[in-house]
Amino acid sequence: MSLIVMKFGGSSVGTTERMGRVAQRIVDKKLQGNRVVVVVSAMGDTTDDLIEKANEINANPPAREMDMLLTTGEQISVALLSMAIHKLGHGAKSYTGWQAGIVTEAVHAKARINDISPDRILNALDQGDVVIVAGFQGMTESGEITTLGRGGSDTTAVALAAAINADVCEIYTDVDGVYSTDPRVVKCARKLDTISYDEMLELAHLGAAVLHPRAVEYAKHNKVNLVVRSSFTNNEGTLVREEAEMEQGIVVRGIAYDKNVVRISVLGVEDVPGVLAKMFGALANNGIDVDIIVQSGVQGGKADFSFTISTADRAKAIDVLASIQTIVPYREVSYEEGLVKVSIVGAGMVSNPGVAATMFEAISSVGVSIKMVSTSEIKVSCVIAAEKVQDVVRALHTAYGLDTADSVFVGGPQDRR
Amino acid sequence: MSLIVMKFGGSSVGTTERMGRVAQRIVDKKLQGNRVVVVVSAMGDTTDDLIEKANEINANPPAREMDMLLTTGEQISVALLSMAIHKLGHGAKSYTGWQAGIVTEAVHAKARINDISPDRILNALDQGDVVIVAGFQGMTESGEITTLGRGGSDTTAVALAAAINADVCEIYTDVDGVYSTDPRVVKCARKLDTISYDEMLELAHLGAAVLHPRAVEYAKHNKVNLVVRSSFTNNEGTLVREEAEMEQGIVVRGIAYDKNVVRISVLGVEDVPGVLAKMFGALANNGIDVDIIVQSGVQGGKADFSFTISTADRAKAIDVLASIQTIVPYREVSYEEGLVKVSIVGAGMVSNPGVAATMFEAISSVGVSIKMVSTSEIKVSCVIAAEKVQDVVRALHTAYGLDTADSVFVGGPQDRR
Repeated sequence: MSLIVMKFGGSSVGTTERMGRVAQRIVDKKLQGNRVVVVVSAMGDTTDDLIEKANEINANPPAREMDMLLTTGEQISVALLSMAIHKLGHGAKSYTGWQAGIVTEAVHAKARINDISPDRILNALDQGDVVIVAGFQGMTESGEITTLGRGGSDTTAVALAAAINADVCEIYTDVDGVYSTDPRVVKCARKLDTISYDEMLELAHLGAAVLHPRAVEYAKHNKVNLVVRSSFTNNEGTLVREEAEMEQGIVVRGIAYDKNVVRISVLGVEDVPGVLAKMFGALANNGIDVDIIVQSGVQGGKADFSFTISTADRAKAIDVLASIQTIVPYREVSYEEGLVKVSIVGAGMVSNPGVAATMFEAISSVGVSIKMVSTSEIKVSCVIAAEKVQDVVRALHTAYGLDTADSVFVGGPQDRR
Repeated sequence: MSLIVMKFGGSSVGTTERMGRVAQRIVDKKLQGNRVVVVVSAMGDTTDDLIEKANEINANPPAREMDMLLTTGEQISVALLSMAIHKLGHGAKSYTGWQAGIVTEAVHAKARINDISPDRILNALDQGDVVIVAGFQGMTESGEITTLGRGGSDTTAVALAAAINADVCEIYTDVDGVYSTDPRVVKCARKLDTISYDEMLELAHLGAAVLHPRAVEYAKHNKVNLVVRSSFTNNEGTLVREEAEMEQGIVVRGIAYDKNVVRISVLGVEDVPGVLAKMFGALANNGIDVDIIVQSGVQGGKADFSFTISTADRAKAIDVLASIQTIVPYREVSYEEGLVKVSIVGAGMVSNPGVAATMFEAISSVGVSIKMVSTSEIKVSCVIAAEKVQDVVRALHTAYGLDTADSVFVGGPQDRR
């Protein structure tokens, strides 16, 4: 008897009919002798409908009230899914995030999970019920309702799997696994049987869409066996686990791209001690994740900084920078949109000095210029203009000999929660 | 500076535009120097839409999961109303039932409030915020989400008003007060300025629609000043308070009717000690409220019982009776639908022996026969066939001289929460 966490995204439960099919799938898993905890997102367009209603009333609603509003989406899902399982003659109990003991930090719209007290869930499992938990949500220690932000339901599933020591956490989605590259861009893409946490993590961070990086991080840290599989077929999916076997001679294992990038430039910053800490500290305190940071050389006591953030944070970042101009004096701020970050990932990269050069060549060969570069031990990222991203991905795929090899890419449209 | 609870029903917040008007009304009340707690129901058709979705999935969903589902309706309302108040430049915080400290008994679909811990609400008021609480819902001591059943939001409002010792609890609805009789049936109906708890309570129990009896009971017990008023006009409304002045010579003060009545007959019940307690105990344990009970004389050790319950409980009642046939032996059960209970109410009735006879005559004068009768110190109720109820109400109104006097009736379509 295994203990299994199954996570279903919004499109998997988008209609009451699909909800019924998911219920059948859950019951089948239980009838195979497993104890089952299910995490589910809001149905299809529910979240968008709620956001639209909010915007009709207030174009700039408080984050606390948005969390209060949006968490109803998952609560509706868990209740209906429980009813669907009862309809099939099996016991089930639904729980909100706070009922499931999910305690988060005191931040709205993108809280991190601090702790899970799974007693209530374990009791329900002991009584033979299927347990259904609302994804994407939690509660602060003072009893405020919070949401986990993008990819939040994946994180809920993995964190629950860790808290109850589940044998496996299955992420059901609308693709049937992790692919060698984006199948919409490169036709010879193949599904992988296994991938390591580190590779998955780099790819997830770099904009690949199936799993949220925070969920992968959580899985790696807690050694949760993750499986990405289709909610529409019975195919095996891809297992994400601690060590995946590497093929000899493969330097670059995957290629990913992130379309959601804006570059902010802060020009003429006074070069006094602590200026960087103040600037990026202020951005971090406002919940803005900064990705690539590039500093030009200092001239006449002034420096120029560029950094990338996600498009959604652009206006807020500029507000934050304006608010700190007295303590971090600078001449001006500008930004550039319509950018994409393309990345190559591979654990063998560190010992292969020509890897970055090959990337620059391949990008140049399709007539694209590189705006920013960032490197780590197992990846190289280039920020480029968005127009030719597909040509660039294809060129890189060929340049690294991936058209036939066992490379990795997490493809498919993003399931936003 | 007064402390005021304002309650708005589902039709008052049925659209985002109406929500905006309610927000303005709340802000006006605050700007008059009051501290304001708002209780709100689910928007317009939200609850019906959720019930429909549930029924698509499971025609007989578990009550626990229905509570989980339906409470999202009020949670959406409170979040949006808070946003609407923020839009007007004022602070507001929304709370679910459990966040507001509303603890109920461990019953689904129609729980009673056991206790309210208002600390969190009082803190928010101290910070200058408008407090918005989801009506109709609470939490059991073990953390299960419950609903309060029909009229639940009225009860939430009154119970909160009692818990925070509010100066007044204003129930905003789609009629502008308590009327001398149903204005849709009798044209000379007039709005009353005041009415006593007892009169309101009898009328509410008898099917009058503006206030739920449980809310009136709670108000009476805790001496909460209740005002019923329109959410669309600035008219004064009707104050429900401890003592309303009685006019001399008025025996019958109000006429009410309840269309939601079914009569169950249990025939040939063995007349052994405790049989009544067992039968009605089993019904009560299953949450079925029994109203009028009539027992025929015992013949050959067997008795016949008839009782009325609300139409919604009919199938359940018959199931319960079937399940206890071994311990309460009887010959058969039958039921009759399409019935109405018409009642006359007045504190002066007890000292006027001819009152009931006048009622029977008036009913007979429009050619209607009486199926059941029940009397108390301040009311007489008759169960009749539904078809001629309007004729009966008009005839009674005239017979008791109410066409010109200050009689009472709570009219208007029911705001279900």
